[in-house]
Amino acid sequence: MYNELLRDEHFRATAALAAEKEKISCETLLKSVAAGRCVIPLNNRRQITSPCGIGENLSTKINVNLGTSPDKINLKAELEKLALAVDLGADAVMDLSLGGDLKKIRRSILEASPLPVGTVPIYEAAMGAQKKRGSFLKMEAEDIFDVLEGQACDGVDFFTIHCGINKKSLEVFLKSRRLLDIVSRGGAILVNWMRKNGKENPLFEYFDRVLDIARRYRITLSLGDGMRPGCIADATDAPQIAELKELGKLTQRARKAGVQVIIEGPGHIPLHEIKKNMELEKKICDGAPFYVLGPLVTDIGAGYDHITGAIGGALAAYYGADFLCYLTPAEHIRHPSVEDTRQGIVASKIAAHAADIARGLKGAAGQDRLMAIARKHRDWQKQIRCAIDPKKTKEYKLSSKPKTKGVCTMCGEFCSIRLIDTCLPTRPIAKGRPTGKKAKSHH
Amino acid sequence: MYNELLRDEHFRATAALAAEKEKISCETLLKSVAAGRCVIPLNNRRQITSPCGIGENLSTKINVNLGTSPDKINLKAELEKLALAVDLGADAVMDLSLGGDLKKIRRSILEASPLPVGTVPIYEAAMGAQKKRGSFLKMEAEDIFDVLEGQACDGVDFFTIHCGINKKSLEVFLKSRRLLDIVSRGGAILVNWMRKNGKENPLFEYFDRVLDIARRYRITLSLGDGMRPGCIADATDAPQIAELKELGKLTQRARKAGVQVIIEGPGHIPLHEIKKNMELEKKICDGAPFYVLGPLVTDIGAGYDHITGAIGGALAAYYGADFLCYLTPAEHIRHPSVEDTRQGIVASKIAAHAADIARGLKGAAGQDRLMAIARKHRDWQKQIRCAIDPKKTKEYKLSSKPKTKGVCTMCGEFCSIRLIDTCLPTRPIAKGRPTGKKAKSHH
Repeated sequence: MYNELLRDEHFRATAALAAEKEKISCETLLKSVAAGRCVIPLNNRRQITSPCGIGENLSTKINVNLGTSPDKINLKAELEKLALAVDLGADAVMDLSLGGDLKKIRRSILEASPLPVGTVPIYEAAMGAQKKRGSFLKMEAEDIFDVLEGQACDGVDFFTIHCGINKKSLEVFLKSRRLLDIVSRGGAILVNWMRKNGKENPLFEYFDRVLDIARRYRITLSLGDGMRPGCIADATDAPQIAELKELGKLTQRARKAGVQVIIEGPGHIPLHEIKKNMELEKKICDGAPFYVLGPLVTDIGAGYDHITGAIGGALAAYYGADFLCYLTPAEHIRHPSVEDTRQGIVASKIAAHAADIARGLKGAAGQDRLMAIARKHRDWQKQIRCAIDPKKTKEYKLSSKPKTKGVCTMCGEFCSIRLIDTCLPTRPIAKGRPTGKKAKSHH
Repeated sequence: MYNELLRDEHFRATAALAAEKEKISCETLLKSVAAGRCVIPLNNRRQITSPCGIGENLSTKINVNLGTSPDKINLKAELEKLALAVDLGADAVMDLSLGGDLKKIRRSILEASPLPVGTVPIYEAAMGAQKKRGSFLKMEAEDIFDVLEGQACDGVDFFTIHCGINKKSLEVFLKSRRLLDIVSRGGAILVNWMRKNGKENPLFEYFDRVLDIARRYRITLSLGDGMRPGCIADATDAPQIAELKELGKLTQRARKAGVQVIIEGPGHIPLHEIKKNMELEKKICDGAPFYVLGPLVTDIGAGYDHITGAIGGALAAYYGADFLCYLTPAEHIRHPSVEDTRQGIVASKIAAHAADIARGLKGAAGQDRLMAIARKHRDWQKQIRCAIDPKKTKEYKLSSKPKTKGVCTMCGEFCSIRLIDTCLPTRPIAKGRPTGKKAKSHH
């Protein structure tokens, strides 16, 4: 399936960088790519200095959404968010801009990003039709393919394509008793268009054309979930599964065409359904990497959806999700600020990291161990360096000065670690104990 | 075991209030209390207007730690945190003050709190010995019991008693290869004292005296985990389990004495060990309610430990924890500010709520359903009311004004819900679908 891709020197050189970051051999990584169980997003026109593999046996990756909205157009702020994403160790970004000069914004982000960059081309197609023809409902198939070609040519590394919404899955949706209908922007644009024009979704009908463009530019396709549940009551329902089945079929077509493919997933899922959702995707889409948005484990977390999403994301990644899309505290209520973005990135990083530790990924707990040792030594400089967000940790520590040396103001002189130091000063630091190997006294 | 307690009118009246909040019959609640599988913290000298049951088949409860540190003494700020806890729907608070006039602070909190109030009396005993005898190491057993009696008389509803640290569990600890020794303040004070004085822990040695005070004032005992793991490498290790076994035995003694009892638990636990930890506690402590601190699923979340703890807390509560102690973003690095406390409370509420939905607790997803309907209608006032923190949600929404009516600045005119409204305006809202009953199309 991927012979051409795997022979390509530019791709192989980038894969080598990705493998190095992962501390595995490039051969191992390329085997997973060959099996369709891992992707390395990379447009053949781009040089990515910090690429990543997404999929089986790899660390969990996180994506940071950037981009303007029709109401918030500030390229500088979006580039600041990109810098923050790079700084905090995100793995990919998506430019989801919906306002301003989309081409200019995209090109600026592509130019500035050392990480893979994704887009949702239907946005630009809809905005273009709005401008050119007065309504996105007047969009034509050619508008869409022009945009795909243009964005591909600009160097976009991965495309979200909402191709699972077709007449068949739409019928299931219309017969369903969903509470919150469709909460995907791309999905809503396409359903509206299909209903108004009485036509099949061009991204489905002409999926071979999508594949042709993707193959020519070596773009990874992220098959979008236009029918993802927008509230926990709708989780794992008939429309969601109907669409997932369509994506499963399209996955096979993409693989046959030599196009790398990942699957997008929900959304809002209660805690107890997360495992099942991960298993379903892996089964229906034959082990294709799974890219989830959250999932949010409750609907009422507005203002804190980075937390709600981190709970779901940690569990999802533990059970098989490969790629977490971050959520910010602003989700559902406003366009995120730069600070919202920081909160969102870190929350997502925590979720991914917690899952990687639980999955027993080699070396995943290494930084935790260093942090624990730094705590034992009350070495605050080292604690700051080990923290997931050193800047925030430093700010907190410096904001509040203890009277006693070497502690923090939480416990002051009654710092438990300080107290133990005084009574067990010579106790050596334990050597590494694999997280999986536990005391047996309780069996 | 609990005949005397269950006959007490003051206790029964409070139990009735707790049952009402839970929407179960008082009889059902009292049956769980009688079996030791649920507690209702209440000092017989206190009137609690907003009491709660903690334990089997009840909603997951959350506790908010308040209190000064040796470095941060500001009663007003602590009372503000209390008000916030009440406002945001916390279920209990603990006064963990370590600085200033401890009696005055405690009495102020007790007077102001409509929620059950807990303390860790060993703190006052240690501080008192420090003042009176120059060092907490010179503390005498009588100092401890004087404090217990005094705090009981003040009306404290539940005591954390670190009685599981004894010569036996300490020996296991000293032989262990722990990375981070002891991270419990109470635990560190007692281990230090035991080592210095070569004596048994008075809270263990004279546990009958503890029980006598608890019984006389009808105080609930929270058996503390002085040997909880302070990093994920130490999770579920020999000292932790050795102490838990001691607590299991003391649970039976407390029950025999007619004293309500809950068990405290870790701490730092990787995601994949949480289920096992919950099962171990329920087994070793014969179904006694479990009160966990976090658990934190990684050690490197400094500045964001409310998130790290919410991930662990949600999973812990799903697998059996009954009571979550909140964590703030300041954990490990400074005494929390009022805003830290807000962040911590909401994160903990989200965790508890997500778990209750996943447990299938009756009515748990009701507010989520209302939120989803408010979203469908783009009714922002109602969304704000349904949110877990209406104030924050409102601030976010108002901070960013869209040009298009009825949307937010995230998507502006391309709001998916708005788009679907225009193409499916007459689609009725689905009637309730139990979260457990899902589409079968994928089987």
